[in-house]
Amino acid sequence: MRVMIDLCIVPVGVGVSVSKYVAACQHVLTSAGLTPHLHAYGTTVEGEWDAVFAAVKACHEKVHEMGAPRISTTIKAGTRTDRTQTPEQKVESVQRKL
Amino acid sequence: MRVMIDLCIVPVGVGVSVSKYVAACQHVLTSAGLTPHLHAYGTTVEGEWDAVFAAVKACHEKVHEMGAPRISTTIKAGTRTDRTQTPEQKVESVQRKL
Amino acid sequence: MRVMIDLCIVPVGVGVSVSKYVAACQHVLTSAGLTPHLHAYGTTVEGEWDAVFAAVKACHEKVHEMGAPRISTTIKAGTRTDRTQTPEQKVESVQRKL
Amino acid sequence: MRVMIDLCIVPVGVGVSVSKYVAACQHVLTSAGLTPHLHAYGTTVEGEWDAVFAAVKACHEKVHEMGAPRISTTIKAGTRTDRTQTPEQKVESVQRKL
Repeated sequence: MRVMIDLCIVPVGVGVSVSKYVAACQHVLTSAGLTPHLHAYGTTVEGEWDAVFAAVKACHEKVHEMGAPRISTTIKAGTRTDRTQTPEQKVESVQRKL
Repeated sequence: MRVMIDLCIVPVGVGVSVSKYVAACQHVLTSAGLTPHLHAYGTTVEGEWDAVFAAVKACHEKVHEMGAPRISTTIKAGTRTDRTQTPEQKVESVQRKL
Repeated sequence: MRVMIDLCIVPVGVGVSVSKYVAACQHVLTSAGLTPHLHAYGTTVEGEWDAVFAAVKACHEKVHEMGAPRISTTIKAGTRTDRTQTPEQKVESVQRKL
Repeated sequence: MRVMIDLCIVPVGVGVSVSKYVAACQHVLTSAGLTPHLHAYGTTVEGEWDAVFAAVKACHEKVHEMGAPRISTTIKAGTRTDRTQTPEQKVESVQRKL
């Protein structure tokens, strides 16, 4: 089962600057063979369910290793059986209608 | 790694009534050995990361089997290394301060 | 337009314990004439759109006043034109199918 | 108070294709004087709190007018008192650390 997720990881208890943790997660996702699409409020990733969520877990482990005692993450996850659609195709589908 | 999640699964393409899909997911979560805490806008589940996310995947599979061609899910996921806390303890911690 | 929201406010930059901020928001919501339904991963509130989102703004203002330099909030918001449904009715609708 | 939000509006009860509703919301946001940043799993918008949430309400009204009986929306909302930061600056802040 393919899944597209939008991942927003917020480390809590390490001050207000979170960009170094987000950058570390980009590396974790890339190392997992995924292609992260970074945007201003999260990262979109598409792939097989198990691979994607194993990478999300690896992000949590990495951010804890970097010193964050608590992490508050928001994930949107979409699956569909009618067709496949990449992140780029989702954006194009809207842009054609603008 | 323990995780507490809040899970809100929205089947898309099967009309406006989603309660039967939510009910089916309660069974999936219980069958997985987890204790779902149902509330008006989702379900809170606590457990080991792999068990919890395997159950979320099983919910998606079940809802697709029931006929939903598309699912849009929102998950909040919290992990912490400083202490353990159950869903009940989180609520009590706030209520003591009211 | 009525709206039901699920509100999860995470203060960032003030350490790992967030329960006193959540408790303060319960007071803000109640003072606004709303009935917050606290659960382990957020608070469900139902009411007129403008009143509900004015109260969410007041929560952000309150949490900043209490010293949080940054707030990361997740809101789920549902509106429907086919019927009205309270938080209690949403839960009952699922429980009848269990 | 400035706010940056990530907005993901899912119309329910109108089939699986949601791109025309998302496109209509881009017009609503632009008409409100805001600059929507569309990505594969939502739209990022930055501005004054009242203007931003009035535009989100207008999106719900528009999507209902287009025929959707039910809408399930997820919003991430960030405010901060320590500094201002545009969506572009948030992305650059991460990219500099990659």
